[in-house]
Amino acid sequence: MEKPYAIGIDIGGTNTVFGVVDKRGHIINQGSIKTGAYKEINDYVKSLASALKEIIEQVGGPSNIKGIGVGAPNGNFFTGCIEFAPNLPWKGVIPLAKMLSEIVNVPVALTNDANAAAIGEMTYGAARGMKDFIVITLGTGVGSGIVVNGQLVYGHDGFAGELGHTTIRREGRLCGCGRKGCLETYSSATGVARTAREFLETRKDASLLRELEAEEITSKDVYDAAIQGDKVAQEIFEFTGQILGESFADFISFSSPEAIILFGGLTKSGKLIFDPVRKAMEDNLLKIYKNKVKLLMSELKESDAAVLGASALGWEVKEN
Amino acid sequence: MEKPYAIGIDIGGTNTVFGVVDKRGHIINQGSIKTGAYKEINDYVKSLASALKEIIEQVGGPSNIKGIGVGAPNGNFFTGCIEFAPNLPWKGVIPLAKMLSEIVNVPVALTNDANAAAIGEMTYGAARGMKDFIVITLGTGVGSGIVVNGQLVYGHDGFAGELGHTTIRREGRLCGCGRKGCLETYSSATGVARTAREFLETRKDASLLRELEAEEITSKDVYDAAIQGDKVAQEIFEFTGQILGESFADFISFSSPEAIILFGGLTKSGKLIFDPVRKAMEDNLLKIYKNKVKLLMSELKESDAAVLGASALGWEVKEN
Repeated sequence: MEKPYAIGIDIGGTNTVFGVVDKRGHIINQGSIKTGAYKEINDYVKSLASALKEIIEQVGGPSNIKGIGVGAPNGNFFTGCIEFAPNLPWKGVIPLAKMLSEIVNVPVALTNDANAAAIGEMTYGAARGMKDFIVITLGTGVGSGIVVNGQLVYGHDGFAGELGHTTIRREGRLCGCGRKGCLETYSSATGVARTAREFLETRKDASLLRELEAEEITSKDVYDAAIQGDKVAQEIFEFTGQILGESFADFISFSSPEAIILFGGLTKSGKLIFDPVRKAMEDNLLKIYKNKVKLLMSELKESDAAVLGASALGWEVKEN
Repeated sequence: MEKPYAIGIDIGGTNTVFGVVDKRGHIINQGSIKTGAYKEINDYVKSLASALKEIIEQVGGPSNIKGIGVGAPNGNFFTGCIEFAPNLPWKGVIPLAKMLSEIVNVPVALTNDANAAAIGEMTYGAARGMKDFIVITLGTGVGSGIVVNGQLVYGHDGFAGELGHTTIRREGRLCGCGRKGCLETYSSATGVARTAREFLETRKDASLLRELEAEEITSKDVYDAAIQGDKVAQEIFEFTGQILGESFADFISFSSPEAIILFGGLTKSGKLIFDPVRKAMEDNLLKIYKNKVKLLMSELKESDAAVLGASALGWEVKEN
């Protein structure tokens, strides 16, 4: 008999969220543990496994689970390892898929969080029925999951799809990766905050944002100011969207996707970011691509999206 | 019985070259007609078909031919049409695959010339055994054929892989496509000539190239001067390679290929272009990709490469 459930696990720097999901994308039950509370990976895995066992028993035990999918920063699908993730407590290469499957006795597949989001959109979200699309995650950083011919692009080593680290401004802003001008230095939530500080420093006009400590401004502050009609804040979103749209025009020259789907915290800004992205994308596209590529918002309910995305990988997992 | 031959056709602005190829990539016999001599597409197809019938008879007739592959500028694999090719005599959308197969009675598949080169490298050349690689063609323009998971990336509309039109210098050189700063304005044969004119105008130092009419300088002239030790000419290649390498670093963030393979006229410059490309590529790569991606020259004998590449598509053609 076909197994009715998969499990999705989303590992973030602060929390690890997981849930049992059915074939229609409904989360049956869920839980979470604090990622940051475990300095030792063995302790983390033990705690996660025991929480998982509990929710697995609630749906009739491991024989009802097709597989576990994990989305994690720097997760490598080919090796099942988390490799040198700067925002997680554990150093080096962590063979998480193996460690987890040995305790839980269910096959585990692992990929990075943006790839999980792409699989989630294809299985349950805005990309249902599409074979060629790109998911761009706009959070603390900028991530990407690329699907070509209905398959996720992993590349020869499992590390494909680092579009947040393509160079959009030669000799531009210094990036955490050590290089300059990466897309994520401009178009992530932290990029928006950085743009705010730059604009406030180089411009003289009034802005609600001037009431805040420059170093403490967040993308949420910029959003709040923008919807109150603050000009500077609105222009920060226009600048962010402009750069994102320019990048998208190049990404489209690569894989000519049917759609680019925006996912993650910054998409809450809605039209403020969406409209300038669309305009800059169309303005910069090669003629053969113009007015052909859909720009979409993720259709996954935000609180569930990460778990759903990871669980979608669980359906594809190879059984032991 | 398995059919022993495929036919490759390479349609260029000046000549159309074709040949019968066996499974080991040997060209059994070949021929050519002048593309530019036919203003009417019907006349061209008739002439091409009758030349093909001749070489087909020489190998025992159509029952020995698995398929015909065509590489053509602006060729669309999905539709079998050549669409708005600026350098061919025929306007609009030309359903060449259909026209040709109706006369010759052999199934025909068509794609653009860079995609044909990529299939050729995978079947007979430097990419044998690879599942993830990118072929960059350096000719009058810059083209690309991208392979992911062992499959050519066509995108949702058949137009993927226009890497020559990714933006490498924002507000840079005006491109034939109407946009600014495209890779091909710098790193094609015409880009090299353009760089030469720029360097000669903005610099004062002596150069063999100053003996030529600026408007008539070709990439071949720059090559000839460079191998005679001309500093300016050598720096033109360094500049060209630098820009190409910077682009490659971004392409790698997309599909993390095992190799990037250089193909086409400009590769005759050998180390002059190869060394600066490799250096700039490594200098600009995100850390996880460093020292992992092979930079290779095409292994296809140049005079045969286009026909072999197209013929490789002929093996994959669906029979009617």
